[in-house]
Amino acid sequence: MADIFAPSPRVEKLKKTLSDFVEFDCIPAEAVFHKQIAPPGSAERWKTFPAVIETLKAKAKALGLWNLWMPNYYPEGPGLTNLEYASLCEIMGRCHIAAEATNCSAPDTGNMEVLAKYGNAEQKAKWLVPLMEGRIRSAFAMTEPAVASSDATNIETSIVRDGDSYVVNGRKWWISGAGDPRCALFLVMGKSDPSNTNKHRQQSVIIVPAGTPGITIIRPMLVFGYDDAPHGHMEMVFKDVRVPASNMILGEGRGFEIIQGRLGPGRIHHCMRAIGAAERALEFQLLRLTDPSRKTFGKLLGQHGSAADGVAQSRMEIDQARLLVLRAARSMDVRGPKDAMNEIAMAKVVVPSMCIRVIDRAIQVHGGGGVCQDFPLANMYAMNRTLKIADGPDEVHTMQIGKTELRRARALHDHFAKQDALTKAAVAKL
Amino acid sequence: MADIFAPSPRVEKLKKTLSDFVEFDCIPAEAVFHKQIAPPGSAERWKTFPAVIETLKAKAKALGLWNLWMPNYYPEGPGLTNLEYASLCEIMGRCHIAAEATNCSAPDTGNMEVLAKYGNAEQKAKWLVPLMEGRIRSAFAMTEPAVASSDATNIETSIVRDGDSYVVNGRKWWISGAGDPRCALFLVMGKSDPSNTNKHRQQSVIIVPAGTPGITIIRPMLVFGYDDAPHGHMEMVFKDVRVPASNMILGEGRGFEIIQGRLGPGRIHHCMRAIGAAERALEFQLLRLTDPSRKTFGKLLGQHGSAADGVAQSRMEIDQARLLVLRAARSMDVRGPKDAMNEIAMAKVVVPSMCIRVIDRAIQVHGGGGVCQDFPLANMYAMNRTLKIADGPDEVHTMQIGKTELRRARALHDHFAKQDALTKAAVAKL
Amino acid sequence: MADIFAPSPRVEKLKKTLSDFVEFDCIPAEAVFHKQIAPPGSAERWKTFPAVIETLKAKAKALGLWNLWMPNYYPEGPGLTNLEYASLCEIMGRCHIAAEATNCSAPDTGNMEVLAKYGNAEQKAKWLVPLMEGRIRSAFAMTEPAVASSDATNIETSIVRDGDSYVVNGRKWWISGAGDPRCALFLVMGKSDPSNTNKHRQQSVIIVPAGTPGITIIRPMLVFGYDDAPHGHMEMVFKDVRVPASNMILGEGRGFEIIQGRLGPGRIHHCMRAIGAAERALEFQLLRLTDPSRKTFGKLLGQHGSAADGVAQSRMEIDQARLLVLRAARSMDVRGPKDAMNEIAMAKVVVPSMCIRVIDRAIQVHGGGGVCQDFPLANMYAMNRTLKIADGPDEVHTMQIGKTELRRARALHDHFAKQDALTKAAVAKL
Amino acid sequence: MADIFAPSPRVEKLKKTLSDFVEFDCIPAEAVFHKQIAPPGSAERWKTFPAVIETLKAKAKALGLWNLWMPNYYPEGPGLTNLEYASLCEIMGRCHIAAEATNCSAPDTGNMEVLAKYGNAEQKAKWLVPLMEGRIRSAFAMTEPAVASSDATNIETSIVRDGDSYVVNGRKWWISGAGDPRCALFLVMGKSDPSNTNKHRQQSVIIVPAGTPGITIIRPMLVFGYDDAPHGHMEMVFKDVRVPASNMILGEGRGFEIIQGRLGPGRIHHCMRAIGAAERALEFQLLRLTDPSRKTFGKLLGQHGSAADGVAQSRMEIDQARLLVLRAARSMDVRGPKDAMNEIAMAKVVVPSMCIRVIDRAIQVHGGGGVCQDFPLANMYAMNRTLKIADGPDEVHTMQIGKTELRRARALHDHFAKQDALTKAAVAKL
Repeated sequence: MADIFAPSPRVEKLKKTLSDFVEFDCIPAEAVFHKQIAPPGSAERWKTFPAVIETLKAKAKALGLWNLWMPNYYPEGPGLTNLEYASLCEIMGRCHIAAEATNCSAPDTGNMEVLAKYGNAEQKAKWLVPLMEGRIRSAFAMTEPAVASSDATNIETSIVRDGDSYVVNGRKWWISGAGDPRCALFLVMGKSDPSNTNKHRQQSVIIVPAGTPGITIIRPMLVFGYDDAPHGHMEMVFKDVRVPASNMILGEGRGFEIIQGRLGPGRIHHCMRAIGAAERALEFQLLRLTDPSRKTFGKLLGQHGSAADGVAQSRMEIDQARLLVLRAARSMDVRGPKDAMNEIAMAKVVVPSMCIRVIDRAIQVHGGGGVCQDFPLANMYAMNRTLKIADGPDEVHTMQIGKTELRRARALHDHFAKQDALTKAAVAKL
Repeated sequence: MADIFAPSPRVEKLKKTLSDFVEFDCIPAEAVFHKQIAPPGSAERWKTFPAVIETLKAKAKALGLWNLWMPNYYPEGPGLTNLEYASLCEIMGRCHIAAEATNCSAPDTGNMEVLAKYGNAEQKAKWLVPLMEGRIRSAFAMTEPAVASSDATNIETSIVRDGDSYVVNGRKWWISGAGDPRCALFLVMGKSDPSNTNKHRQQSVIIVPAGTPGITIIRPMLVFGYDDAPHGHMEMVFKDVRVPASNMILGEGRGFEIIQGRLGPGRIHHCMRAIGAAERALEFQLLRLTDPSRKTFGKLLGQHGSAADGVAQSRMEIDQARLLVLRAARSMDVRGPKDAMNEIAMAKVVVPSMCIRVIDRAIQVHGGGGVCQDFPLANMYAMNRTLKIADGPDEVHTMQIGKTELRRARALHDHFAKQDALTKAAVAKL
Repeated sequence: MADIFAPSPRVEKLKKTLSDFVEFDCIPAEAVFHKQIAPPGSAERWKTFPAVIETLKAKAKALGLWNLWMPNYYPEGPGLTNLEYASLCEIMGRCHIAAEATNCSAPDTGNMEVLAKYGNAEQKAKWLVPLMEGRIRSAFAMTEPAVASSDATNIETSIVRDGDSYVVNGRKWWISGAGDPRCALFLVMGKSDPSNTNKHRQQSVIIVPAGTPGITIIRPMLVFGYDDAPHGHMEMVFKDVRVPASNMILGEGRGFEIIQGRLGPGRIHHCMRAIGAAERALEFQLLRLTDPSRKTFGKLLGQHGSAADGVAQSRMEIDQARLLVLRAARSMDVRGPKDAMNEIAMAKVVVPSMCIRVIDRAIQVHGGGGVCQDFPLANMYAMNRTLKIADGPDEVHTMQIGKTELRRARALHDHFAKQDALTKAAVAKL
Repeated sequence: MADIFAPSPRVEKLKKTLSDFVEFDCIPAEAVFHKQIAPPGSAERWKTFPAVIETLKAKAKALGLWNLWMPNYYPEGPGLTNLEYASLCEIMGRCHIAAEATNCSAPDTGNMEVLAKYGNAEQKAKWLVPLMEGRIRSAFAMTEPAVASSDATNIETSIVRDGDSYVVNGRKWWISGAGDPRCALFLVMGKSDPSNTNKHRQQSVIIVPAGTPGITIIRPMLVFGYDDAPHGHMEMVFKDVRVPASNMILGEGRGFEIIQGRLGPGRIHHCMRAIGAAERALEFQLLRLTDPSRKTFGKLLGQHGSAADGVAQSRMEIDQARLLVLRAARSMDVRGPKDAMNEIAMAKVVVPSMCIRVIDRAIQVHGGGGVCQDFPLANMYAMNRTLKIADGPDEVHTMQIGKTELRRARALHDHFAKQDALTKAAVAKL
């Protein structure tokens, strides 16, 4: 890969520094991280966060591994392209705390991008600056339990102007990051103009500070039994939540524009982290297959039947998927996120399925170890499984890709008609 | 199916009674069950069990829905064939507490079968009777964390004769049911004669009463984050655990014989319950696809693109898999478990993968709902995923099926040689 | 299988006789068959047929292996059920000339069924009798090149009443059997009343004797390069073809009724023959994998990596598919073809894909041999590939199966509502 | 793609010129090509070749579209890198006569590379020059019917020194290009030193001019019924064929070295042409799905159920596979074919399977049209199916890829041990 996409010396150096940080700081901190959170089900579960993450953040900042995700078209960032960041992002994906440790984790990155792109000076000063410094965290409140949110026009939360305020009412769930005590703000998507005939102008996005009266965290949503604390994916209610009118982002009715502007890079980040996770899963598989204490019927597991085949399949699938994501990242750099939408959609569909297939193969060779808490594999499976649903289910993106192809048909009919005429002329001469 | 396998009027009646019991007693009790267990992580988690299960057991016994699993070749049982029970077992599989409610749940069924088949009169009186009455529960302690247990000859726990006792030492994990406070005995597999040159005569199976000094429960093994309480899949240590010599089953060195004799019907039970689970998952999918509150882009989910395809795939896969299991059950009845080994192996390989594919499709149409605690789908996925590993991983059974086929080759070579000679003679006459 | 479906002694005997006939008469005659047809491309190609087939037919008739396909609800036949015939049909499927040798081959079987079911006494005497005696052959002319025939209402051939005659005009293709010089009649589907507002009453089926003026055979359609002579799948034109009005079957406007009544058993026959073909392909694979002259890197092919896995996959897929077909056959017997439609559709979708996957695995282990004329594998692949298209493409049947499932949703909503109410009541009592 | 791999202006221009040539000269000539060959089975079949191909060659040469395949490390070629040629090669793959029309077709390219790389001055003058000028064609005679040639050490043809000559004896098959009357030479692989203890030094490659006494063409091997005339894949016998000793390439015993040096670029060419074929198949599919004359049940085929899904799948699979091949091509350029072996192997495994899946989807939407001679789809399927076998079956390459991964395990064990020590130290500090 390095050969094809020819990283600059600066990026090569970042990759080395980041890789060492992830392998020898973050991964060894995983066990500490889990020990520093209160146990699942306990009253303290959602009131603390692991101290080790702040230590890692300080080190990452000192190493220059900070906010690397922010693309070079934002002056606030370190100036990397999406393609350059993609390779770094894969490295982060190997460890589930590395992205946060480098201030590159969702949903903060997407929220920072919204503020950088659409926020006014006051909003930036108040929220973007501390987010970029890693002093606070944030959440994006969009999905709702009562409707099919994969069609965002279904969203029902209301955002109603009342004097100098807006009043927010609604129920949300799967609000990632809302469990973290450091979460200081919610970007809330809702309807400010539900009767607008343009269904894509009914929505607004507004900043709701955590702690505003009327916000209730109902419960954590579990992912296959995992609560993902301290981050959490919370169900929450906004009941007559009143915020200053100046918290409105970009203006009433521009909510759709905002959520669409937010999605391109974030999808690529998820994909590249999934590829990092897949690579680590494959490494676990390789270790198990060659573990001399795991012989059966006199052979290493890797010497049996189709074991090498499984490894080869994973290698081929990972490599193809990575190239697809890098292509999308490059396309975003060259043509902008909107024109890269189809390439992004392909990555978004291909990668999560690939990732969980690869992880599942690794699980299988670990037997009982694979599905339990002794390896990160089952947790990796669960978290990456949600990517087939999050930010629009596979089906929606696949349909879009199919329709993009079908739109080529008109030009193809002309092209084939021309070929056909030439064919007939040539045959007629025989 | 009913048409093909022509259940008797008695079985038809049992199916109806059982179905009503599962649908309108057990399934409505699921929520009660979960509320009656102490929360995960709490100190009480493994000290209680839900009262509702005992209520259900009493009702099942009164309805004659009791010990139905026990095949007709054991005088202690209700006299159903494996094939007859299979259809009933599928119904139980629709609800994760129905099997226990009817005293048909693993690992008790396998343990009861061991005692019925290999136990002496004293052992039967002491352990089989209360198990069949549902007064106690049991566990089978075989798998070990330190070795590749899919090759059972690797097992290292020692069972050493010392006077009138045996002394057991070893570490086990994934001991299903060991978390339940009602678990009164462990059947422990270990080596009593590790230097025997016959690798399949080194092992014994011995009864270890719960509460015997030296037994320590280390921790629950989690399956994708689920602890499956109160049942549990525990890691445990046997440290100088001393039991009477009369607790030895069948005699020293006969452990392999016992574990093999135990596996046939149990595998079919797992398969049929998995099919019941798959059917219920498909029903959830059908409900979601036709839920008027879940429209996207103006259509029911089931009216979009390939939604009906997914449903059809699940239907075809479930039906094929069920037929395969019923065939194996029938084969066990007619030819005995040993000669049905290949048919059983096919069911064992096909069903779990089918089941999780079907559940995964159901998860996908539920979006966030699918992976979380609001539907049983994610939990069903996790539990059925383990079936690809438990009782020997898919790879071992697939290899056995392949080798069985390859053994046909010799006869085929003769057959083809005969055809070839006839062909040559026929062509020569032209 | 035998165990489950318990064939009667009569059927057991037929199976043995048929199997010997197929293995030691038909298969050795394959090479003779091909040598007795004029070479592809030659002028004689479509004017002759192999003499050996008539020899085989005589022997089959003498052995009582004749018209076995005709279900027991037709007095003209030998009285087997669809289920009983299914196992015999599988045996025939092992050899591409066995079905014709026993007068059980398509499209004659379907055409005989039409005549037996819908023909009047005169039509039966004139056409059904010689067909059942194997003296003539027939074709069914439905598919048209100019329209999407998978929606049969698109068919454009016209059948116009003119005095005591009907006049047929239209272009047909894929008319199987039309290449055979013994083909004596066409059952032609066309529109007799194109303006009928009921789209399923516009069509009629009429008998057109071969040799009637105005019939032109245009060309053979090739299937992956094979012309399937002498049978052939022909493109043909009917130009002002005049036949007596008495040749109309069942009456004007009843064409749809006729084609639907014709399809059930025929689909099962195709499926069972495909299973026979798959079994033979698997046997070729087993032979190759154990062929001592084909060692690579010091091992038999079957001893390498995943070779046994491939064999096991084929075994599991064949066995599941067979059970599905037998279920459909049984369902037809018990409930009639119409009510068995869904089971038949499942078999129709599952079997061809299974069959070509199995054959493809066999091809792969044969290397160059697999794709060429030295083994029947490539030809078997091509012929079975067409089954995913013929009699309605997979997509149409899959959609039907999906919709049948979705129709269950209404009852499920009620059922779940009842469970839900019970759950709420139970929880409320806690 | 263009964005990522940034073609130079020269290559951009070549792509445009080549694309026009393929679309509007070669594709319209396909029908002419087939009409200008004698019919299959006829005596003339293998004695002529279509005149149109020579017309196309002249035009291609005039346009500078000639020998583009020859990599820039050979002074005889046009100076393109493997990566640059790859994109051009894809364009050629859209039409089965375009590669020959531009003197870029197998096996000539591989044979020219052997002569350019290993030939001496005399051999180059006599054979390489006319091959590069397109005046003659050639074949490579390696595979043998009697042994498993996927292990090349099994080859049995003998090449025996006798005075100033070598005498060749052996039977070969699948000798591609040997059917063409323009084929002027065979590069024959055989054993010159069968008793050499080094199994990879037993073989030699020698030039055998066509027409040398003792060469007999036995028959064309059919691929799914296609003979691929005039090219052909012939079975042939070398019986006491005597050639000058100076025809030996590189020296006795260096046959393995030669065949390995020949394979890298050729595999990439096959892959890129397969991708071109897949793209064209997808275009046929798009046309059919949007063809207003092919409506069923009132809708375009592309508006039904999962039709858009199939298109999207093909798009995603093609794009991933292409990126994998381009990576391998780039790797060959940067590191040489030998070090790119693993990347090449991945492309070699992934592409043919992808290609036939894509073509099969296109076939399916065409119904009967898809499998017959009216579209090139079935032929494309057959030809690309052989790529899973040719130049080593998938299984061999997959095993190599798996083993390459497994070789990483040793370093991974060290890496994980280091992480583990750090983890333990960190946890100990808590």
